[in-house]
Amino acid sequence: MTAIQNMADAIRFLAIDAIRTAGEGHQGVPLGMAEIAATLYANHLKAAPKDPLWPDRDRVVLSNGHGSMLLYALLHLSGYDKMTLDALKSFRTLHSVCAGHPEIEQNAGIEITSGLLGQGIACAVGMAVAEERLAARFGRDLVDHRTWAFVGDGCLQEGMGQEAISLAGHLQLGRLTFLWDDNQITDDGDTALSISEDVPARFCAANWHVVSVDGHDIDAVDAAFIEAKSDPRPSLIACRTTIARGIPRLQGKRGGHSAPLTPQDADEARIARSWPHPAFHIPKDIYDDWHKAMDRGAQAQTEWSKTLATHPDQDEFNRWMTGALPANWADNLPGSRNDARATILSSGDACDILTEVLPELIVLCADLEAPTNHKRSRDSFNLTNRAGTYVHCGVREHLMGAMVSGIAAHGGLRPINVTYLAFADYERPAMRMAALMSLPAIYVFSHDSIGVGSNGPTHQPVETLASYRAMPNMRVFRPADAVETAEAWEVALETSDGPSMFALSRQDADQVRSDTSENLTRLGAYILAGKDGDRDLTLIATGTEVGLAVKARDILEPLGIRTTVVSMPCWDLFEDQPPAYQAQVLGDAPRIAIEAALKFGWERWLRPTDRFIGMTSFGASAKAPVLYDHFGINDNKIIVAAKELTGR
Amino acid sequence: MTAIQNMADAIRFLAIDAIRTAGEGHQGVPLGMAEIAATLYANHLKAAPKDPLWPDRDRVVLSNGHGSMLLYALLHLSGYDKMTLDALKSFRTLHSVCAGHPEIEQNAGIEITSGLLGQGIACAVGMAVAEERLAARFGRDLVDHRTWAFVGDGCLQEGMGQEAISLAGHLQLGRLTFLWDDNQITDDGDTALSISEDVPARFCAANWHVVSVDGHDIDAVDAAFIEAKSDPRPSLIACRTTIARGIPRLQGKRGGHSAPLTPQDADEARIARSWPHPAFHIPKDIYDDWHKAMDRGAQAQTEWSKTLATHPDQDEFNRWMTGALPANWADNLPGSRNDARATILSSGDACDILTEVLPELIVLCADLEAPTNHKRSRDSFNLTNRAGTYVHCGVREHLMGAMVSGIAAHGGLRPINVTYLAFADYERPAMRMAALMSLPAIYVFSHDSIGVGSNGPTHQPVETLASYRAMPNMRVFRPADAVETAEAWEVALETSDGPSMFALSRQDADQVRSDTSENLTRLGAYILAGKDGDRDLTLIATGTEVGLAVKARDILEPLGIRTTVVSMPCWDLFEDQPPAYQAQVLGDAPRIAIEAALKFGWERWLRPTDRFIGMTSFGASAKAPVLYDHFGINDNKIIVAAKELTGR
Repeated sequence: MTAIQNMADAIRFLAIDAIRTAGEGHQGVPLGMAEIAATLYANHLKAAPKDPLWPDRDRVVLSNGHGSMLLYALLHLSGYDKMTLDALKSFRTLHSVCAGHPEIEQNAGIEITSGLLGQGIACAVGMAVAEERLAARFGRDLVDHRTWAFVGDGCLQEGMGQEAISLAGHLQLGRLTFLWDDNQITDDGDTALSISEDVPARFCAANWHVVSVDGHDIDAVDAAFIEAKSDPRPSLIACRTTIARGIPRLQGKRGGHSAPLTPQDADEARIARSWPHPAFHIPKDIYDDWHKAMDRGAQAQTEWSKTLATHPDQDEFNRWMTGALPANWADNLPGSRNDARATILSSGDACDILTEVLPELIVLCADLEAPTNHKRSRDSFNLTNRAGTYVHCGVREHLMGAMVSGIAAHGGLRPINVTYLAFADYERPAMRMAALMSLPAIYVFSHDSIGVGSNGPTHQPVETLASYRAMPNMRVFRPADAVETAEAWEVALETSDGPSMFALSRQDADQVRSDTSENLTRLGAYILAGKDGDRDLTLIATGTEVGLAVKARDILEPLGIRTTVVSMPCWDLFEDQPPAYQAQVLGDAPRIAIEAALKFGWERWLRPTDRFIGMTSFGASAKAPVLYDHFGINDNKIIVAAKELTGR
Repeated sequence: MTAIQNMADAIRFLAIDAIRTAGEGHQGVPLGMAEIAATLYANHLKAAPKDPLWPDRDRVVLSNGHGSMLLYALLHLSGYDKMTLDALKSFRTLHSVCAGHPEIEQNAGIEITSGLLGQGIACAVGMAVAEERLAARFGRDLVDHRTWAFVGDGCLQEGMGQEAISLAGHLQLGRLTFLWDDNQITDDGDTALSISEDVPARFCAANWHVVSVDGHDIDAVDAAFIEAKSDPRPSLIACRTTIARGIPRLQGKRGGHSAPLTPQDADEARIARSWPHPAFHIPKDIYDDWHKAMDRGAQAQTEWSKTLATHPDQDEFNRWMTGALPANWADNLPGSRNDARATILSSGDACDILTEVLPELIVLCADLEAPTNHKRSRDSFNLTNRAGTYVHCGVREHLMGAMVSGIAAHGGLRPINVTYLAFADYERPAMRMAALMSLPAIYVFSHDSIGVGSNGPTHQPVETLASYRAMPNMRVFRPADAVETAEAWEVALETSDGPSMFALSRQDADQVRSDTSENLTRLGAYILAGKDGDRDLTLIATGTEVGLAVKARDILEPLGIRTTVVSMPCWDLFEDQPPAYQAQVLGDAPRIAIEAALKFGWERWLRPTDRFIGMTSFGASAKAPVLYDHFGINDNKIIVAAKELTGR
């Protein structure tokens, strides 16, 4: 194992040198986990650095992402072309592939963005689910890989990390392994300041396989990997480590985490570790050992490619992996209908039709199967049925939100996340990560307003739409009826470069669209009723309030107030339209915007003289129609405002 | 124990009758936990319903808040004046004290708002911390109570619930008891759909005392309470229960959770439970048993009042409990200074000065002691020092966010929550609850923009300010310098009816204020430099960008562009100012707003012809000055925009 020790020290000194060059960084993880990582890559990992996007590669997640130099050093040493020595030297500078925290760039070997603690291991659970589901569909000839996650103490303290442990144990994701950097140090110092639980016992309680080792004993670590791979349960390899191992001044100490490194630190580490090489210099024989280790994966990749080339499912496999949609896939999406219907049910209708059309969809739901109604024809994904496309996530929204990112980042599947809009905040950090990573996840949220009714203000979003409209790269849809809901599904599934979310109603929504010849939701906003030219008034509404606007128009028109109704299901898409189209839709007439939510942000579409009819506070507990009247969101209020604005 | 069984059935039928009257509700919890609750109230709880705000009362939290009729029935039966029979009959209707989920109304016995799963038990951890801290200060003569939390499966699946278990075990909060409704049913059905972990073992791993009982065996439950009270560890009483027990059609079944009740259900339950009484009728002897049980608490309250009346700390105790601030408390808050200083450090300065002035402050931090710098003169609160006012919460932001609500709701302490602004999303649901409950919590967030530097976009808020400005009843402060930071502390601490949050810089902030004769932050926005009248241009900025605006003004004025700089540390407060003041501050001249965040929401203060200089996307990894230039937030950009707007 001398070779592996040298491979480990190569990681160690690349990390030291890069952090020294950057002037800052987190040495604790790369120095403490060097032996673990080197052993993984040398003897166990399946990866082909020259084909970084190989679908059957093992997925490696650095959940303790502040230790990013561990990952960059690994990727450089194992031969990812984009991870050059110059890249390492540019650590933490603008446009470098070696950012402060790993930022997704799969063709450089960076599987996901990580660093917000807990997110990485939660994504890893999603990756492991994706692997099982894909294996069930395409067989182990094509899908036969593992997920490895480097994990720090912080990830395991985070609630979402605990959710990950619980669900991964429940689903018995046996190809998922956590490598716990048990260095007994967090940012505050000794972990004993804030935790005294028996972490291995906690994993055991969740039905994980646990093996505890000295994280610097390469033989022991190697044996643990062998044991983990042979156990049918998900595995925790609890690695007792010394933070910042190799730097005499800092190792095992609080400052090991990220205290600035001095030239003396680098010198003393070289003496301590008998590493005579200058900065950024790795001897050829050590590079050779790294590259030789990668041959195992390269050969597997070659054989796998041959298998795929003659596989009867080759085309379908490639379609899933590239995310391409089949021809005419959207043809059978639900169209117009005559009856009022909750948009969450219309969304369920669309999702149900797609069960067979797009078998790559996988729906995750946080214990709200009945009220969100997106299971229907789907089978549950569980220990005995890996072909299922509906994952009962339990009441674990944050995990679920990150799992969809993990599934999307894994590739091959399109994940759909389902819960109430009031619970979106529980998974907001994960949704932000999806937006940051430009992953095509879809978040379906029901119960989107005071329309929830008497469950009351805890369950009634009022600021949630604004808070997500404010998030970059997150497309927020609030469709008005069955047609717009189906259109939103179509647009969201065609979107490959970022997430979409739907805010849907629990209560019935009037059907406002009959013409389905064109997907108008794609425009973000459009004239639903009335003219774009001669008009006295424009009503702009979203979601269930579009029906209200249409009703108001039916009253206003006979009064001689020429009223145009604009449905605006997606601000983001409307902002992308040419100014001329925006002007045509919005017109010059006085405007009233109607949305059962707070005004915040609506100033974007309203002039100071325009009006907003919506919420001004949190909601309340009563039946939905009572609340709409109580908060003054009804046709009477619209009529009064319309008369005032138009002087009629 | 026959009396307690009747007391339990009284809960059961009040719940059935109220849910039947409302037409909807969640019968699973009140029917399944009736024996547990009745036993608690009959033999163990310390409460005085006629003095619901008695400081030394036990705190009862219904974390599974959907089972709200359990709480309302308990409070009615035990004699809280506001919880009349008519109130129960108005369950789930507008303005009823019996809302769909419990909404804080402490003079009716409702300690906190609950129902978003996990929030209640996390608040309970905060309450238990508050009790220990107050007991350390005022002694067990005045502070000697317990916290009891009813807990469902969902609360324990939520990550924040797991965080609560971990930290409560670490801090050994021995007066905290969770009553787990182990009914093996969640909304989706059998809990086995989504969890297979050994829940008691998970608690044991975190050093809890665990006792498992049949939740309908009153003797066993009673013995478990006795055991829990005598054990120094926090206790889990794992109560194996039958959901909706008493309704033959639904008990033990998925529909027991909240399926609509029929008249037959109510009739069959009366037969099954031998309960011959009509709807909402409780026999006098059962009421008498309830009221007799409450005598224990009433006597304790009487004795306690006598103790307080002669206690040397009476005045100080009352001051803490009423939240009154001592005279001249703010006199020594830091004033102006000459050097640039990160506002997170200035906040630490203020917090440090208050350690002695306001000993009722308690600071919670999520493993960022060093970079947020708010510990200083504070001692750690831990197992051996309950007088400490700094709680190392570990990397458990969501728990921390709810703990501050629990502490505030408990009364007697003023909680301060400290972490990075990028992690605010992790605790957003808890912050929303604080806003909804109008609790005076203070959230101190550092690292508030791209000024974070090379830790990169995961750690750089860009949409976070907007997302919280959108939240009702949450005051968002982004102070410019040391003076505004101290002013924000002053305003936040004087605010008793809602939470405040501070967005503070990691990087140095220019000192822009020297005149400290008036707290100008209280106005929300004010003219920092230049005139309110004759001006060619108004620069509006917040936080670290105020210094940038001042620099730009120094360049623009010599060019003949009369420039007024408006500092706008708190939108919410500015919105409360009279329109005339707003107009005076904002002026008619062209405006440029400058904030290192997204524009979303700024349309509130900008006209279509005005400009915004800020972010348009997520951030990036590089040093802060590089990023400011890269994203075009610098004086040069301001100058160019100013010239364009003014035509100079």
